[in-house]
Amino acid sequence: MMDNKHWLLPEGIDEVLPPNANALEHLRRKMLDLYSSWGYELVFPPFIEYLESLLTGTGGDLDIQTFKLTDQITGRTMGIRADITPQVARIDAHQLRRDCPTRLCYLGTVLNTRPDGFAGSRSPLQIGAELYGHAGVESDLEILCLMLETMECAGVEDVYLDLGHVGIFRGLAEQAGLDSSQELALFDALQRKAVPEIEGLVESFGIDAAVGEMLCALAELSGDDALEQGRERLKAASSPVLEAIAELERLAGKLAERRPDVPVHFDLSELRGYHYHTGVVFAAFAPGLGQELARGGRYDEIGKVFGRARPARGFSADLKMLYRLSGTVDQNSETGIYAPACDEPELMQKIKELRAQGRRVVCALPGQTGDAQTMGCGEALEKQGEDWVVVAVS
Amino acid sequence: MMDNKHWLLPEGIDEVLPPNANALEHLRRKMLDLYSSWGYELVFPPFIEYLESLLTGTGGDLDIQTFKLTDQITGRTMGIRADITPQVARIDAHQLRRDCPTRLCYLGTVLNTRPDGFAGSRSPLQIGAELYGHAGVESDLEILCLMLETMECAGVEDVYLDLGHVGIFRGLAEQAGLDSSQELALFDALQRKAVPEIEGLVESFGIDAAVGEMLCALAELSGDDALEQGRERLKAASSPVLEAIAELERLAGKLAERRPDVPVHFDLSELRGYHYHTGVVFAAFAPGLGQELARGGRYDEIGKVFGRARPARGFSADLKMLYRLSGTVDQNSETGIYAPACDEPELMQKIKELRAQGRRVVCALPGQTGDAQTMGCGEALEKQGEDWVVVAVS
Repeated sequence: MMDNKHWLLPEGIDEVLPPNANALEHLRRKMLDLYSSWGYELVFPPFIEYLESLLTGTGGDLDIQTFKLTDQITGRTMGIRADITPQVARIDAHQLRRDCPTRLCYLGTVLNTRPDGFAGSRSPLQIGAELYGHAGVESDLEILCLMLETMECAGVEDVYLDLGHVGIFRGLAEQAGLDSSQELALFDALQRKAVPEIEGLVESFGIDAAVGEMLCALAELSGDDALEQGRERLKAASSPVLEAIAELERLAGKLAERRPDVPVHFDLSELRGYHYHTGVVFAAFAPGLGQELARGGRYDEIGKVFGRARPARGFSADLKMLYRLSGTVDQNSETGIYAPACDEPELMQKIKELRAQGRRVVCALPGQTGDAQTMGCGEALEKQGEDWVVVAVS
Repeated sequence: MMDNKHWLLPEGIDEVLPPNANALEHLRRKMLDLYSSWGYELVFPPFIEYLESLLTGTGGDLDIQTFKLTDQITGRTMGIRADITPQVARIDAHQLRRDCPTRLCYLGTVLNTRPDGFAGSRSPLQIGAELYGHAGVESDLEILCLMLETMECAGVEDVYLDLGHVGIFRGLAEQAGLDSSQELALFDALQRKAVPEIEGLVESFGIDAAVGEMLCALAELSGDDALEQGRERLKAASSPVLEAIAELERLAGKLAERRPDVPVHFDLSELRGYHYHTGVVFAAFAPGLGQELARGGRYDEIGKVFGRARPARGFSADLKMLYRLSGTVDQNSETGIYAPACDEPELMQKIKELRAQGRRVVCALPGQTGDAQTMGCGEALEKQGEDWVVVAVS
């Protein structure tokens, strides 16, 4: 587990100490190897950027979550990334500029000015994968399946999914003729599923009765059968709304074929990442955990400002949170070999060989405190005749 | 190489794109595995901390290099780490509190307000190792040897070392009775080896003639024979100075035994990291490169404020700089297997098996642009009779 002796560290900022750091590193490698095996290429976006390239196309939430800095060289305002996804979208659109589908993955610390959903942390270790340049439901499916494998790679069991589509609310808001401040107020009430408040807003905005009824219905359209109910209760909606429902159905159908073992829960008012998502949105949960383990969706517009609006989808998670859930343990304890404090070239050669074989050899220092076991060594190097041999520590 | 299309990024801030990111990750793992094989335990210190815990015991240079932030929760000033070494010292002294020698290693991005020695970068990927709790020359030797292996692990050839000892200047300054502003002025002139300026300062400070002569001599005491010359020209120095020279000689002797292949250059006015180093200091260079590749030394006092001043030494380097010098190339290109856009369960099973074996399998997306080769695949999955087999792409 992450260490708790934090009094010197700011709230929500943590550090990872032995033996957890080594186990976290192990999980990190497993994850990146998984993504590589799916054809996702690694990128390392920068930790800070000029604020406008960090926030462009992302909406106000991210702005509030972003620490600001002044660049002493130019006097311009820079920000510390609070989310890596927009950076990767910039890399796809501006740096790589490929025509073919592009699969990218990343891992890195992000900072938030306030603790967010990730376990109250202000410094999640964000890991994720993004797929650009293909508009079909097959891409949504691939990203969803990779998100599920991410959970499995971390050893998280009994994961279930939440599926939604921001096009449903957005289409209804347009159909209702709402301006952006009205849309925001309704969005906010919907996130809280505050039905009386939604009804009040619908009335005060003077929304057409049929559309108003559908907006109120949204908050109730969640559960296993929300899609069927939605088709019924939103049948008077505009075609973008109906198309969004149909898209969700196609994805759910394909997912049921590929991963029949994973329970799916629909939530038609689910608007996670509403500020840059444009289509299907999803999140992964595990029983007994109130918060999501990973989230993602479609965000086709974000690259536009960098030169090209490619179809895009992806997911992200906090690797430190997955690590806490994974129960991964460090393999290193007591596996070391203790070498005596001695300069003999034959000993040096033997140590070099053992290390090259991947063994951990700890050299004793003259007069040091602590014996082999204190130093994490279950074995030791001992001279027998002419040879240095590895023996068990008694 | 690091990518150059930086116009959206602030000066000295870079990002790493395919295929370099994967190759950098490969080098990262090799390095951390090397440190683990030497018994160094990994730590991940936080990216930001309250300013006082970040700067305590480090001196003014680091303060100037540190980006400041306001913690919105407490209103206190935080800093982005500009150097990981003081964080690791805090972890040893305050978090781990062990009695036995403690070996720690780390890797992470640091940020500097201004480009520093690391190739004009403001975001080096700092890697390093630290050894706490043992005062002997054997610890200096271990850290020096590990620094040399770090260079070899990166494939940097013909490395040579610069060796110095901050105790020499510090002892002479004390012997001369300098106050801290005088010491700083002289320190500054010595770093530039500005002999006439040093002579002027010695005179204006009214320093005793014999001591003044030794301070002036310091700037000239560099080269292969600087230690012998130093013993002669500084023989009237106080005992801490003589002890510092003797310490340097002991280390050089042991190093010559262990690594007779590595050329050593002495520089008695070398004061790298003067603000927290207290003893031997060293740096690694390669022919034709003006700047140091790694640096380190002894810093026994830094943990004091966190509860215990343990003997300490360590080194650090910029992994991105080592990567640029290493000529490491990505192994991934054309090694992928292209799978057709098809939902057949047998194909899914085959893909899963190949990925579990560590193969990279890229799934075609219906209607996508780009063929197998565009997608980095030299092989493809093809149905032959009932079976899916891997075939070369023609």
